[in-house]
Amino acid sequence: MTEQKLSDKPAPVGGAMEPALSALRGPAGPVVPGPGAVAALRPLGLDQALLHPDGLLGRWRRRNTEETLPHCVDNLYSKGNIGNLQAAAGEGDQPFTGMWFADSDVHKTLEAALWELGTSPGDTRLKEFVDTTAALLARAQQPDGYLNSYFTIAEPDARWRRPNWSHELYCAGHLIQAAVAGGRVGAHPGLLSIARRFADLLVERFGPGGVEEVCGHPEIETALAELYRLTGHRPYLDLARRFLDLRGRGLLGEGRFGPRYYQDHVPVREAREVTGHAVRQLYLLAGMTDVAMETGDRAMLDAAERLWDDAFGTRTYVTGAHGSRHREEAYGDPYELPPDRAYGETCAAIASFHWNWRLLLATGRARYADEMERVLHNAVAPAVSADGRHFFYSNPLQSRTGHEGSGEEAASRRLPWYSCACCPPNIARLMASLPGYLATADHTGLQVHLYGDASLTTTVAGRTVRVAVRTAYPWQGRIELSVHGDDVQAPWTLALRVPGWCEAYTVSVDGEQMPASARDGYVRLTREWTPGTRVVLDLDMPVRQVRAHPRVDAVRGCVALARGPLVYCVEQADLPSGAVLEDVRLDPAAPITAGPRADLPHIPVVLGARGLLADPGDALYTAGAGRERTSGPLTFTAVPYFLWGNRSEGPMRVWVPVTTAG
Amino acid sequence: MTEQKLSDKPAPVGGAMEPALSALRGPAGPVVPGPGAVAALRPLGLDQALLHPDGLLGRWRRRNTEETLPHCVDNLYSKGNIGNLQAAAGEGDQPFTGMWFADSDVHKTLEAALWELGTSPGDTRLKEFVDTTAALLARAQQPDGYLNSYFTIAEPDARWRRPNWSHELYCAGHLIQAAVAGGRVGAHPGLLSIARRFADLLVERFGPGGVEEVCGHPEIETALAELYRLTGHRPYLDLARRFLDLRGRGLLGEGRFGPRYYQDHVPVREAREVTGHAVRQLYLLAGMTDVAMETGDRAMLDAAERLWDDAFGTRTYVTGAHGSRHREEAYGDPYELPPDRAYGETCAAIASFHWNWRLLLATGRARYADEMERVLHNAVAPAVSADGRHFFYSNPLQSRTGHEGSGEEAASRRLPWYSCACCPPNIARLMASLPGYLATADHTGLQVHLYGDASLTTTVAGRTVRVAVRTAYPWQGRIELSVHGDDVQAPWTLALRVPGWCEAYTVSVDGEQMPASARDGYVRLTREWTPGTRVVLDLDMPVRQVRAHPRVDAVRGCVALARGPLVYCVEQADLPSGAVLEDVRLDPAAPITAGPRADLPHIPVVLGARGLLADPGDALYTAGAGRERTSGPLTFTAVPYFLWGNRSEGPMRVWVPVTTAG
Repeated sequence: MTEQKLSDKPAPVGGAMEPALSALRGPAGPVVPGPGAVAALRPLGLDQALLHPDGLLGRWRRRNTEETLPHCVDNLYSKGNIGNLQAAAGEGDQPFTGMWFADSDVHKTLEAALWELGTSPGDTRLKEFVDTTAALLARAQQPDGYLNSYFTIAEPDARWRRPNWSHELYCAGHLIQAAVAGGRVGAHPGLLSIARRFADLLVERFGPGGVEEVCGHPEIETALAELYRLTGHRPYLDLARRFLDLRGRGLLGEGRFGPRYYQDHVPVREAREVTGHAVRQLYLLAGMTDVAMETGDRAMLDAAERLWDDAFGTRTYVTGAHGSRHREEAYGDPYELPPDRAYGETCAAIASFHWNWRLLLATGRARYADEMERVLHNAVAPAVSADGRHFFYSNPLQSRTGHEGSGEEAASRRLPWYSCACCPPNIARLMASLPGYLATADHTGLQVHLYGDASLTTTVAGRTVRVAVRTAYPWQGRIELSVHGDDVQAPWTLALRVPGWCEAYTVSVDGEQMPASARDGYVRLTREWTPGTRVVLDLDMPVRQVRAHPRVDAVRGCVALARGPLVYCVEQADLPSGAVLEDVRLDPAAPITAGPRADLPHIPVVLGARGLLADPGDALYTAGAGRERTSGPLTFTAVPYFLWGNRSEGPMRVWVPVTTAG
Repeated sequence: MTEQKLSDKPAPVGGAMEPALSALRGPAGPVVPGPGAVAALRPLGLDQALLHPDGLLGRWRRRNTEETLPHCVDNLYSKGNIGNLQAAAGEGDQPFTGMWFADSDVHKTLEAALWELGTSPGDTRLKEFVDTTAALLARAQQPDGYLNSYFTIAEPDARWRRPNWSHELYCAGHLIQAAVAGGRVGAHPGLLSIARRFADLLVERFGPGGVEEVCGHPEIETALAELYRLTGHRPYLDLARRFLDLRGRGLLGEGRFGPRYYQDHVPVREAREVTGHAVRQLYLLAGMTDVAMETGDRAMLDAAERLWDDAFGTRTYVTGAHGSRHREEAYGDPYELPPDRAYGETCAAIASFHWNWRLLLATGRARYADEMERVLHNAVAPAVSADGRHFFYSNPLQSRTGHEGSGEEAASRRLPWYSCACCPPNIARLMASLPGYLATADHTGLQVHLYGDASLTTTVAGRTVRVAVRTAYPWQGRIELSVHGDDVQAPWTLALRVPGWCEAYTVSVDGEQMPASARDGYVRLTREWTPGTRVVLDLDMPVRQVRAHPRVDAVRGCVALARGPLVYCVEQADLPSGAVLEDVRLDPAAPITAGPRADLPHIPVVLGARGLLADPGDALYTAGAGRERTSGPLTFTAVPYFLWGNRSEGPMRVWVPVTTAG
């Protein structure tokens, strides 16, 4: 790759930060461990990691900017969320509308807008939304700092009365997260004052010596840790830790689903398995990891990593999705991973991404970055339509012929909004902050974790380092990096993640092959870098036939096709007329092609497989030998799972049965 | 079999009916089509079909009499159901306790007690419960005939205001069913008056020209049809039909789960698939079949049989259980039949039994009797513990290692009672009336549908016919029948069901082999019967390896073991120490033994299978070839599914993976 080629590319999304928007403390991005934190890595900011808009990640972010975020803002108005706050401010008479935690949709959208302003400070429409909404929040805030439109206008007497289901601290957490985003990108100190007034009230009420209570829906823990990091105000961190320490003591009561549902059945440091509502569990784990980092609480971090082993060893979908049960939106038993009834809530995927990022910062272990890649590409991305304005709430790995999916609960197509609208603005805030998750730095140099067309900047030993990344990843495995920056004479290390799915790769520096010897998941190139040095990491990307652990009964005898980080699926739309998707069988011995297809120009790589069409007969149960009859050979196409459901509504499956052996 | 042997047996349960307990109209049993009904068969009454207490069915009924029914009565008092009615009668100040439809538990228990009195009229304890409760109901009934303790004491202003969720007509239906039982066995005319006063109120309010409304939980339809049959009062039938005709017009609104949940999305005659809450769907189908029979409504019966094809062709478990989803207690998509998350509500199995009985009476088709046999032995019976005092609400076909089942929703062992206690008294009323489902008669003779040690009596062409049935069924396939009765000179037909699972059988009459030529599922022996004629039907009963339709993804590569009408399962308790149930693989080519086992003396026939123990490895997902490693050969035992969970709590599975071919 030449400089010429690089300069051919469009400008990065948003452009560099204006000096006026400098962060209060640390990089202008999500999750910035404090100065005393026990963390292996430190993040770059949104001003230091810029995505080019023509790579896949860059296009996702641009679509978020141009479509999803404005769509969220529109819905906050049309669905009544803003009206609720106006009523709470005494400026309207709208009866409370929507879910009792509807404020959190506002806060998440605000957070998304603020991360966007971090790279596009000149976006006047976004700035107006932020200013208007922050001002409204200020007026809706009660004199003592309390801020929650539901408990202000609908049930004022119930304030703080239903900790297990009120979501008051959950909403407070999202307000704080928005304020932290504003603080980090320097875009709205006023919002930070609002959040701090509320946080100070929480410290007063729930802090040491105060009420012993926890929230049925975790979120406040990670938010308070972040607020501490931004402000350096220790009581916020102490309160986060207190909320964690108080868990598992039965404070939440039995509730409707029992204490395991909201992870109140065991003290957090003693937990041995993920349980209950997946989003709650994952937000709680994010908070645990934050507090463990900031306080050096090894037992807390050990517990988090132990629960990671359980979640990712026994209860995670091949897409990275979490939540096997619609009922309670919950984890199942070990190896209970039905593809058709996969819940895979979009928010759980986002929470997993957030949690793995924290574990990556804390430990530097590649498995967390691997997981971020998997869940981003195969569990977050599928939730958004090609147009950026329709969303899945649950993300099944199979939609059957005859599936009745007209409602929200198991929709067969993405919907523009949901009565419980937690997911769309959650997507918006993740996608808006996406560049902040690409890479990290430490005292040895720069680590690149997620691959996309990007420009990365950081300081190593006080000197600026810049790396340009050019790649057609995830469609191709070739990643070209160009190292720039000050004339750094001292050696530093460029670490490039070799994904866990990759079995063969090559590395070259200025055309010279290096020994390909990844250690702990990273190729580490240590040298005195001459400006302009070109590094090429070439990851072998064959089509993989993935099988599940034999205890995953639900997909026995099936394979999932994957290539690079992408999981593929088969859609009815690509089958010959008359073929029923449930009858497709893949011949595991036949070669599988990978490449473009003329009638699917928007997908750079589709897969072509061979197999049979089974002739299943009629009887639901039959006795005797089980050899399947087949009605003939078949060739069929698989498309990336994240793109499913963008054509006509119809059946889909990730796991494809293989032809019976023999 | 000799007469001597027959007389060695204990007396039938209860003994013959006393003359004072003669029925008002028709046989003293459940579901007696009216004189104008379009029905192929007519039932015997509880006075005409007596179960001997040492056969399996007889023991189930005796356990019900001695354990389950008293247990239900005790719980009605201790859980507050009786207290609710006392409060409604102005005789107590108990705030309403339990579910808002708790009255239905009382009514179902009452129905069970009344069926019991049909065969044991001398049971003073039962009679006292019936008299006391009926008197209480009379005092709790409002002046206008309304009777519902919840809407009397807890929400009087909400009476008739929430048709989609109030269960008022559902409760009324169960009151009527109890009264019909009382009427049929002649045990309590006072209760019938209570029910008729309420039913008359319903006719006045909801009948022609009245309020257009239906109930969110069907039951009233079949109850009103039965009340019409008992009383001959046509407005009850007309109202039942009106409730059916008004369905599918959106009267119930969207509710929480949409109109498909309570089968209000389409007019009943146009329905093409079973949907939503399984119990509601099945009770509705029972009501449809009743009304179709009584009115000769062919389109209604066609719809019911069409939905039968859908339910039993695509959405029924191998045990006969219904309901694939915990969420909404609902049917799933076609072929969505997960064993681990099978809901299989006990009430749905009972409802299926009731519905199939109605279809059998209407059409005489053997498939309905086959289904009654399957669901009784494998979906109703498993819900009751060996001691008769513990119950499953949901009936999964698999309980995993690591299953967390301490709550009611997916309990890993039978519980003594439930907060929603619909199932235990429903079991009680079915088991109490069980003899009434064994056989039928028509103008040609007697049909035996369910096999157990029993004495059957009916009239053919005005003359009494008696058949004694002796068998160790379902453990053995030999069924011996001895024909008695008046010196009947005219020929009549004894029809014996040959179960759908049976591929070979012999029939002999007085030792002479008959041609084994079942037609439409029945061996029909037409002759002038000499008293004492002995018939032997010998059903071949090899162990069957049952496979599911290939579209049932959840059990691909597995077989279920069955023998005769019984489905078997493997329990952890029978595995060698250290073996994990999920790793058991069955060798489909190895012979499977069937017989007694010394350490399981209470099970006449256990199965012994051979296979392997898989060594599954650790990774949740792996790429590449999928041949499983095994850690060695294994022999293992399977026990009847209806007996699972009666030893230590532990993993269980019906579907066992087979060893990989080759």
